[in-house]
Amino acid sequence: MEQELVIGIDIGGTKIDVGLIEPSGKILERMRIWTNVHEGLNAVVQNIYDAIEKVTAGIKTSIRGIGIGAPGQVDVKNGIVLFAPNLKWKDVEMKRIIHERYRLPVEIENDANCGALAEAKLGAGSKSNNLIWITVGTGIGGGIIIDGNLIQGANFAGGEIGHMTMKKNGPVCGCGNKGCLEALAAGPAIIHQIRKKINSGTQTTILKVVDNDLNRITVEIAANAADVGDSLSLKVLNKAGEYLGIGVTNLANILNPEVIILGGGVMEVAGHHLLKIIKDTVQNRALSVAKNNLKIELSKLGNDAGLIGASLLVQRSA
Amino acid sequence: MEQELVIGIDIGGTKIDVGLIEPSGKILERMRIWTNVHEGLNAVVQNIYDAIEKVTAGIKTSIRGIGIGAPGQVDVKNGIVLFAPNLKWKDVEMKRIIHERYRLPVEIENDANCGALAEAKLGAGSKSNNLIWITVGTGIGGGIIIDGNLIQGANFAGGEIGHMTMKKNGPVCGCGNKGCLEALAAGPAIIHQIRKKINSGTQTTILKVVDNDLNRITVEIAANAADVGDSLSLKVLNKAGEYLGIGVTNLANILNPEVIILGGGVMEVAGHHLLKIIKDTVQNRALSVAKNNLKIELSKLGNDAGLIGASLLVQRSA
Repeated sequence: MEQELVIGIDIGGTKIDVGLIEPSGKILERMRIWTNVHEGLNAVVQNIYDAIEKVTAGIKTSIRGIGIGAPGQVDVKNGIVLFAPNLKWKDVEMKRIIHERYRLPVEIENDANCGALAEAKLGAGSKSNNLIWITVGTGIGGGIIIDGNLIQGANFAGGEIGHMTMKKNGPVCGCGNKGCLEALAAGPAIIHQIRKKINSGTQTTILKVVDNDLNRITVEIAANAADVGDSLSLKVLNKAGEYLGIGVTNLANILNPEVIILGGGVMEVAGHHLLKIIKDTVQNRALSVAKNNLKIELSKLGNDAGLIGASLLVQRSA
Repeated sequence: MEQELVIGIDIGGTKIDVGLIEPSGKILERMRIWTNVHEGLNAVVQNIYDAIEKVTAGIKTSIRGIGIGAPGQVDVKNGIVLFAPNLKWKDVEMKRIIHERYRLPVEIENDANCGALAEAKLGAGSKSNNLIWITVGTGIGGGIIIDGNLIQGANFAGGEIGHMTMKKNGPVCGCGNKGCLEALAAGPAIIHQIRKKINSGTQTTILKVVDNDLNRITVEIAANAADVGDSLSLKVLNKAGEYLGIGVTNLANILNPEVIILGGGVMEVAGHHLLKIIKDTVQNRALSVAKNNLKIELSKLGNDAGLIGASLLVQRSA
């Protein structure tokens, strides 16, 4: 019997990935389009239609359904994106919209939750029913799976791991709070720390790489500089890693998961530095019962976790 | 038809409460005995037997079963207290021991989880399926109910809310970590702060109350002093309340519950000061989606939450 395929859609503030995906998680066809939030909902939806039609062009296998990951608060029961600041969407009935066009089963979930699902089923957390997925990029988000179920929360807002307060009077976060993990350890925080140290006169090989243009500094450049022993980069990455490690410690103590998986852009380029510091911090700080047998790993699915997880929504509900 | 009754047992490091309890949570008979950990497991168990026999003496109603709450790590599936430092118990097969004596259904659960169950079913969180119970006393513990289920964790160690790191280089905690919520806001931390301020010369009405004997300071005395405007007491309680508020904020952001309930000895005597500060802190710090509709309340069951929750274990499993 031929396998049915699923369409996965991972909607981000900048880009949208659309894929034709096997139940095994193998992506057969894929396409990336710009979100172009400023063009408005209808234009975005039209672009998604176009991408779906391109990835399914010429495909004779039947399509089982469409799974969608979206940033923000998603009412999974009714298939509504309640609030997605990055998309400027409020109460968008995405499930109905997509269903009316394709007459296929449609499921929608928060994008970080999709990542958690994918890692739990096919990635670094395979075979685990108790798993936390942390994505470190421009922001820090997360998805929590307990006893095999995603924690949605009372308002579909569970998993906001990036907004744990780490430092009572720390730097102001995008959310308005002070000292959030995101404000201390996400990509922009790392870059901000590097610029601050350069501005205060600290020596670094980074300056040469960016031709003295501080706007060109990226986490990848810092990670590369750290690889060759740049002490400023090492110091800043160590500090971010320590805060991430405290965040992981808190989650381990509160939820006692089997596996914590770290992914996202920052982990992709600097994970080889950060993971060791995160693990050491957990070793130093977590309760024995919480850290014994706890696996802390880098994502195996990388950027595809959200897309693959979106496709799994349909298989899960079938 | 006559209601069946349940025997509830709440085992603590200092005392053990045994009660004869209606399904409604009403305690018909109760007895408190000292744990006397130093006398060893057999003596403790014998004392529990004696107490059970006393609370059931003359009762003709049939007993449905026995529910036990114990501190520490409890394997609820096999009914084993895996590790309870306060009791010096390791791998104690409590369910088997009690079952062999009474031939009744026996259930056992972590004591903080019992408290969460009781508040969710009969207390401040009635009718909520997403609830966090925080007990603030000598330590800070917690029980988390998501979608109606207790979070046990992979090693039966979920809910260790008191060991969230609040301050990277804060005071050393009993667990070995630095800056845990427990080390900043539990009873001993509050008393320590008061003594420290007195030793550094701060004026307070407390000194008169305790006859200049700093060993006699309690949280209750501090709360009473704060009631009449003692500025040292107010400052120390405000600071503890702020840390508790940050802890509540973190839990709200991570798990998005409907209700967070605070109980335990410190909340009983100082809850009227702390609750307002906790609520204000959450208002200032939590994500809108996490704080909108979030109820933060003091325990309605007080010291009986653990005992009543233990009795609910049997009803739940029946």
